[in-house]
Amino acid sequence: MVDFNKIIDFFENLNIPENMLNRGQLVLNEFMNPIKILFEQRSVPKEPWTDEQIEFLLQTLSNMDTDKDKNAARVGEREARIASKLHLKTSAGFCHGVGRSGFLTAAQPKAPGGSIMYHLSNYLARNVLRNFGLPNIKAAIVVPICTGMSLSLVLGALKPDQNEDPQNLKRKVLIPQIDHKSLLKSINLLGFKTKIISGKIFGDAVRIPIDDIRNNLDDECFAVISVTSFFPPREHDDIKEISKFAQQNNLVHIIINAYGVQSPEWMKMIRSAIDAGRVDAIIQSTDKNFLTPIGGAVIASPTKENITKISQTYPGRASATPIVNFLISMLSMGITGYQKLIEQQQQNREILEIKLKEVAEKLNERVLNIFNPVAVAVSLKNLKEDQLYALGGALYNLRVTGPRVYNPKEKLFGTCCSNYLTPYIVMNAAIGSTKKDIVSAVERFEKAYKQITHK
Amino acid sequence: MVDFNKIIDFFENLNIPENMLNRGQLVLNEFMNPIKILFEQRSVPKEPWTDEQIEFLLQTLSNMDTDKDKNAARVGEREARIASKLHLKTSAGFCHGVGRSGFLTAAQPKAPGGSIMYHLSNYLARNVLRNFGLPNIKAAIVVPICTGMSLSLVLGALKPDQNEDPQNLKRKVLIPQIDHKSLLKSINLLGFKTKIISGKIFGDAVRIPIDDIRNNLDDECFAVISVTSFFPPREHDDIKEISKFAQQNNLVHIIINAYGVQSPEWMKMIRSAIDAGRVDAIIQSTDKNFLTPIGGAVIASPTKENITKISQTYPGRASATPIVNFLISMLSMGITGYQKLIEQQQQNREILEIKLKEVAEKLNERVLNIFNPVAVAVSLKNLKEDQLYALGGALYNLRVTGPRVYNPKEKLFGTCCSNYLTPYIVMNAAIGSTKKDIVSAVERFEKAYKQITHK
Amino acid sequence: MVDFNKIIDFFENLNIPENMLNRGQLVLNEFMNPIKILFEQRSVPKEPWTDEQIEFLLQTLSNMDTDKDKNAARVGEREARIASKLHLKTSAGFCHGVGRSGFLTAAQPKAPGGSIMYHLSNYLARNVLRNFGLPNIKAAIVVPICTGMSLSLVLGALKPDQNEDPQNLKRKVLIPQIDHKSLLKSINLLGFKTKIISGKIFGDAVRIPIDDIRNNLDDECFAVISVTSFFPPREHDDIKEISKFAQQNNLVHIIINAYGVQSPEWMKMIRSAIDAGRVDAIIQSTDKNFLTPIGGAVIASPTKENITKISQTYPGRASATPIVNFLISMLSMGITGYQKLIEQQQQNREILEIKLKEVAEKLNERVLNIFNPVAVAVSLKNLKEDQLYALGGALYNLRVTGPRVYNPKEKLFGTCCSNYLTPYIVMNAAIGSTKKDIVSAVERFEKAYKQITHK
Amino acid sequence: MVDFNKIIDFFENLNIPENMLNRGQLVLNEFMNPIKILFEQRSVPKEPWTDEQIEFLLQTLSNMDTDKDKNAARVGEREARIASKLHLKTSAGFCHGVGRSGFLTAAQPKAPGGSIMYHLSNYLARNVLRNFGLPNIKAAIVVPICTGMSLSLVLGALKPDQNEDPQNLKRKVLIPQIDHKSLLKSINLLGFKTKIISGKIFGDAVRIPIDDIRNNLDDECFAVISVTSFFPPREHDDIKEISKFAQQNNLVHIIINAYGVQSPEWMKMIRSAIDAGRVDAIIQSTDKNFLTPIGGAVIASPTKENITKISQTYPGRASATPIVNFLISMLSMGITGYQKLIEQQQQNREILEIKLKEVAEKLNERVLNIFNPVAVAVSLKNLKEDQLYALGGALYNLRVTGPRVYNPKEKLFGTCCSNYLTPYIVMNAAIGSTKKDIVSAVERFEKAYKQITHK
Repeated sequence: MVDFNKIIDFFENLNIPENMLNRGQLVLNEFMNPIKILFEQRSVPKEPWTDEQIEFLLQTLSNMDTDKDKNAARVGEREARIASKLHLKTSAGFCHGVGRSGFLTAAQPKAPGGSIMYHLSNYLARNVLRNFGLPNIKAAIVVPICTGMSLSLVLGALKPDQNEDPQNLKRKVLIPQIDHKSLLKSINLLGFKTKIISGKIFGDAVRIPIDDIRNNLDDECFAVISVTSFFPPREHDDIKEISKFAQQNNLVHIIINAYGVQSPEWMKMIRSAIDAGRVDAIIQSTDKNFLTPIGGAVIASPTKENITKISQTYPGRASATPIVNFLISMLSMGITGYQKLIEQQQQNREILEIKLKEVAEKLNERVLNIFNPVAVAVSLKNLKEDQLYALGGALYNLRVTGPRVYNPKEKLFGTCCSNYLTPYIVMNAAIGSTKKDIVSAVERFEKAYKQITHK
Repeated sequence: MVDFNKIIDFFENLNIPENMLNRGQLVLNEFMNPIKILFEQRSVPKEPWTDEQIEFLLQTLSNMDTDKDKNAARVGEREARIASKLHLKTSAGFCHGVGRSGFLTAAQPKAPGGSIMYHLSNYLARNVLRNFGLPNIKAAIVVPICTGMSLSLVLGALKPDQNEDPQNLKRKVLIPQIDHKSLLKSINLLGFKTKIISGKIFGDAVRIPIDDIRNNLDDECFAVISVTSFFPPREHDDIKEISKFAQQNNLVHIIINAYGVQSPEWMKMIRSAIDAGRVDAIIQSTDKNFLTPIGGAVIASPTKENITKISQTYPGRASATPIVNFLISMLSMGITGYQKLIEQQQQNREILEIKLKEVAEKLNERVLNIFNPVAVAVSLKNLKEDQLYALGGALYNLRVTGPRVYNPKEKLFGTCCSNYLTPYIVMNAAIGSTKKDIVSAVERFEKAYKQITHK
Repeated sequence: MVDFNKIIDFFENLNIPENMLNRGQLVLNEFMNPIKILFEQRSVPKEPWTDEQIEFLLQTLSNMDTDKDKNAARVGEREARIASKLHLKTSAGFCHGVGRSGFLTAAQPKAPGGSIMYHLSNYLARNVLRNFGLPNIKAAIVVPICTGMSLSLVLGALKPDQNEDPQNLKRKVLIPQIDHKSLLKSINLLGFKTKIISGKIFGDAVRIPIDDIRNNLDDECFAVISVTSFFPPREHDDIKEISKFAQQNNLVHIIINAYGVQSPEWMKMIRSAIDAGRVDAIIQSTDKNFLTPIGGAVIASPTKENITKISQTYPGRASATPIVNFLISMLSMGITGYQKLIEQQQQNREILEIKLKEVAEKLNERVLNIFNPVAVAVSLKNLKEDQLYALGGALYNLRVTGPRVYNPKEKLFGTCCSNYLTPYIVMNAAIGSTKKDIVSAVERFEKAYKQITHK
Repeated sequence: MVDFNKIIDFFENLNIPENMLNRGQLVLNEFMNPIKILFEQRSVPKEPWTDEQIEFLLQTLSNMDTDKDKNAARVGEREARIASKLHLKTSAGFCHGVGRSGFLTAAQPKAPGGSIMYHLSNYLARNVLRNFGLPNIKAAIVVPICTGMSLSLVLGALKPDQNEDPQNLKRKVLIPQIDHKSLLKSINLLGFKTKIISGKIFGDAVRIPIDDIRNNLDDECFAVISVTSFFPPREHDDIKEISKFAQQNNLVHIIINAYGVQSPEWMKMIRSAIDAGRVDAIIQSTDKNFLTPIGGAVIASPTKENITKISQTYPGRASATPIVNFLISMLSMGITGYQKLIEQQQQNREILEIKLKEVAEKLNERVLNIFNPVAVAVSLKNLKEDQLYALGGALYNLRVTGPRVYNPKEKLFGTCCSNYLTPYIVMNAAIGSTKKDIVSAVERFEKAYKQITHK
């Protein structure tokens, strides 16, 4: 095979001056060097890669898979045969997917390249979390399913032995009230019961006091869920205390950190929780944190065995694309790029609050006092029921995507408590959003509000 | 916007003769017409589309999603922001994935194009199954998970109410012995118990008599699994009888038809089973049947409500790529192309048997008498334990991928019974494989066998 | 940089079994090995490369060019800066083009990779011609201009010293009548005069007797042009005799072999001409012979210095794309693939004649007796002037592209003589055409003919 | 065909709410609207297009060409058959190239889409020049050849009738000294003689006084060349006066405006020259001005007939890629983007001068006083011959690309005069370069200079 380190040796007698050839080798080296560093260090690169470098890596690895072997005689029932070359694009060449016999990270004999790709991605997942707030995790895995399904998988992996006598079988999960359908469905999928501890109002914020959680514990419970990132008025849980509580009571403790990696503050809470008590798994979305298309999550744990169990619980194979997407994001941003995005997020969050305060004042509303490093909520107390409804529609028509207009009188689910009174709107300055997004969203909110109240 | 039907109207005064312009319009029309037919009929096209046509469709639809809207102000916590343009390739532009709030097929306000794409794909899934053997299904859904995880999802959706008194709660699944890890894990994931009915030997074949299944029924059982496509010596189940049995006993009946769509014979059995009794869901792999990269399955049902339930059980969003891959396969093959592949499979299956018979005779072995429209098994009775082990290695080195060498003395799991005696090898002439694959695999098998026995 | 020969060394401790890693390396080696062979042998590969292999090569080489160097400080007036990433596709990454200071093949200091690419392509050009009929050429160059412009370039390079006293300056080119506008314009561009020797009719064929050429020689002539491939009724020239004549009279002799590489018979004539007398340059189209998009030509010569002169005559730089296209064609076909295409062409040519004979008989017309390994001409003697005109239109409407309907009474230019009487139609079975093309073209011709004559 | 304006009509009964569908249509409309505006107005868009929009346009147009017609029966000798799908990328689908029978802009019956593409590009070429300084041009053509070859083409098109009696035939071109090999070769290619009027030194600058040009006129001359953009110390020509002179003496006047479009000052000179006298053609590079890969030029003229003649002089077809590249650049930058680039260039030019002045002062050298809106020259009077040579090498090693180190004692060609004494270095702040380029080039120059002088 060509030794790309010395590619120019082939062209010595080609009438191209030596210094030009050397320059060519030099430029090629710079293109390829990051690959070597990646292979050696298995960590997120410091500087962003170009798309061309990323494609080169993916192409090289995927060309190690046996479906690319022209001399193979294929007599399995699945051999990553594809109907169209377009499939090579959507899978980045990894047609064999990931997983084997119900073991996500098992090496696939037919896909050495895909197996390497997956292992690298998992190293990068651990590395990026360690770099951005969780030095105390031991292992991480990128899973080709979203946050909700990841919770099912983790619960399925860490559940008690189900062959226990039905009388003694623990089948209940403690949940400080989290009004999120996917999360509840992910528990229902497995047939577990939920014990939801109601949220309480503290000023503007909704929290679930640790004592309430403690008081709800019963013999059937085997796990407790907690959250960091969530929509106001619900604040993050007191995960450090829940962590201690889980340890004391031998409960599986799963933290839903859906879009929390972007916030050093939320990450710090998790770090403390790990140090203080028991955390079994932390689940984060790849799209919300790492700007991939929808479809993946990173599950991390301070306990390596948990990650192994989770990997072994997945029944069968899965699409490699969500893994590849995570890898693409890591390489295309690098540590520097991600750090910059986090800083931008913090600036945007500040701008969002300032701008919303200005508008709130004009409208005789107010920014609610709720801790959240991503979102800001503003009261809509002057709006009547039909006006609240109209506001949502008006914002949609003004092409503001993502704001949440809530009217607790109409629907309580979403407020995470039973007696929230003020209607409100929530906007996010999430990672990857631009200043222009923030500024124009607030302007359009003002416009929509005035439209509605003036007629 | 440009009316592509009359694109040439723009160029009338451009010094290009009218007949040339007309020809241009004609050629463009032929390129675009299949899109219209697809939109109108929502069925698999008769003739294959070109890659360019497929890309044009995907590009058009994905450009309806709001992440492409330059004038939007995005303040959600997820807005399909992406770190790299490479993500547009792996997702075919559908960065929002599929699913919403734990409802796979729910339309996404931020992704009108992606929602259309998913709806079309589901129509095509139903249509292709109806065309190739199952006219009596009512609905189908393409799911972004593989066969194993699909079984979890279906069981999760069709399981009994879990709030029942634990004493009376049915938590057991009847399984005519299927020695497949992913399948068992998919049941374990949900914490259900399995009641496995052992396989029995009939000549060379392993079958599970319906009476044995009946005799194993107890009060805890709420479901029964059956299979069509499986590895010899295990034959398909008597699914018609299981279907009647399920109806009589009010059991959920799920058919694992992993790679069965390629076989008109297996499909006919399912059709009869649907007509004769109760079938709740039929699960088929998109990669094994429709030549996509790994990652999807089609779940079909004679009962529309089941598909709705399954769709509503999925917790959250998921990658759109497995859906897109299914769509790509359908469009790139068309009915004609798929029919041709099925015919080729049948020819290859015949060649495989003929070639293996010739070799078996030379080696003093024999082709086992087991019904299977895809696979053929040959005895390896002359080989000793270490030779059997060596054969697997030798085939791997000769780059034969996918054959299974089994030594029941060493490991029974895989034979689907407790007393299979002959060691054997299984080879598949699966859809998408070539005559060259078959012929050279048999040649290399002979070579490997001789290498091993002669030394 | 990564040593791709030992890529798996990086992954030894990655929990992937050694035999799997070895398989991955093996498959990768097979993917990359052809690149090494190409670099070492600089000849057209025996077997076709895949698109992925070709892209990998182009990507590697183009990443040696300095416009990819992130650490460069660019202060030239041209540095291959591009407005859009799409330019990387259209140029295959070779944004610097080819050529320098009026020397096509000069190495570009800013483009070591592009320079290598061009040198390799020229080796392949020589190699493919040597392999397919011209072992006696010494050098070849792929030029980023078509056949016509190539003739200008060659004439410009091989013209006499223009500082000669105008009285003695030779400025005339001898041309055995070739009715082709581009060719004549290519001579006019340089301001040379043409002396055209009229064609004569021999049976059905039009030929230019060597004696007529001889008789037209005068003191002003410095060059003679000859052709192989042309449209019936004009046959190829007697290039062996013209070659001798050129040698005797010290004339530059340029052979227009526009689409002649596909025909071993035409190539054999050129080979003999080279051996027998003087041939300065042979020009062939890359698109007509090698199935590239329009835009390039290969100029070959038995005299190395001629190619050097031609390369040095080109004023400035040029698009690299026509060169890349030639390279793509060579790699994607390989010697085997090209050989197969030639055989197919010969079969199609035979089918064309047979089918046309059958139809001609029915229509009371006849296949004209003209030697041409690509084209066949059929008389249209029964058609009146307006019917001949109508036939062209009818064929266009029936989507037959490329046939030529000639009516010598209406326009003599094209017949290469002054007294051709029979109207006729010409069809080609050119390289790359399919049997379906041929058969349906003849059917539609019959249909069109009947339509016209029956009304 | 689908009416994309009403694409959502197809999906009304698809369970997707109407407001979502409307949003999808809206987003799609914004994607496609620019195409309509382009078709209607045939001018450079105000705002940049995305790559996806450009690709959509190219794909639509190229799908009008007959090589995409599956139902065609192809019996021409060239039918744009391609060996590999990769050719579709390099040609953007326009496999038929441009040109026909020696007429560049002639519509091709086999390529209606390609013909439209070319016509549009020519409109855009005229439009961009009119927008950026030359409102008084009447027509423009994008040619698939570079500046040098374009000069050959223009001279070939506008040369006197060559059938004139050799005694009276005018074959000489007047050239105010331009030391550029390609330019001289482009004249030599056609066999014309050159009469070069020597440059004279005015302070630091080299200019050619109009009187010297006048005095050199003789009866053999038929054309005069002038330049705007060139390397210091040569300044632009006094093109207004040359224009008058050409008119008075009935000379063809061709302006080489190689990279002059980026400079409003140079463009203003051309505008005045057109108004004041005779300008036949103005030639500008597409890569140097519009950031395409190498390979094209735009030829403009205040006389429409000249452009027609030039188009008709080109012998044959040519690659469509250089045309497509120009189109891509125009669409991807838009008027706004190009304006911004020009402003950036002006800032960078200023920075370059400031930084070089600082360094020159330190080194006891000085910035030469020469008018040039792109380049700056600095004296190297303190360096000896070997040091000057070493400086070039040192800069190359420091990865400064594009600077020119000149030692008039060693080689006069390049200084455009016979007695330039000071050695000097030239650096460019050309369009598309970045501030980082400029700053680091100057820093490295200082470093290299010191390295050399200190040892």
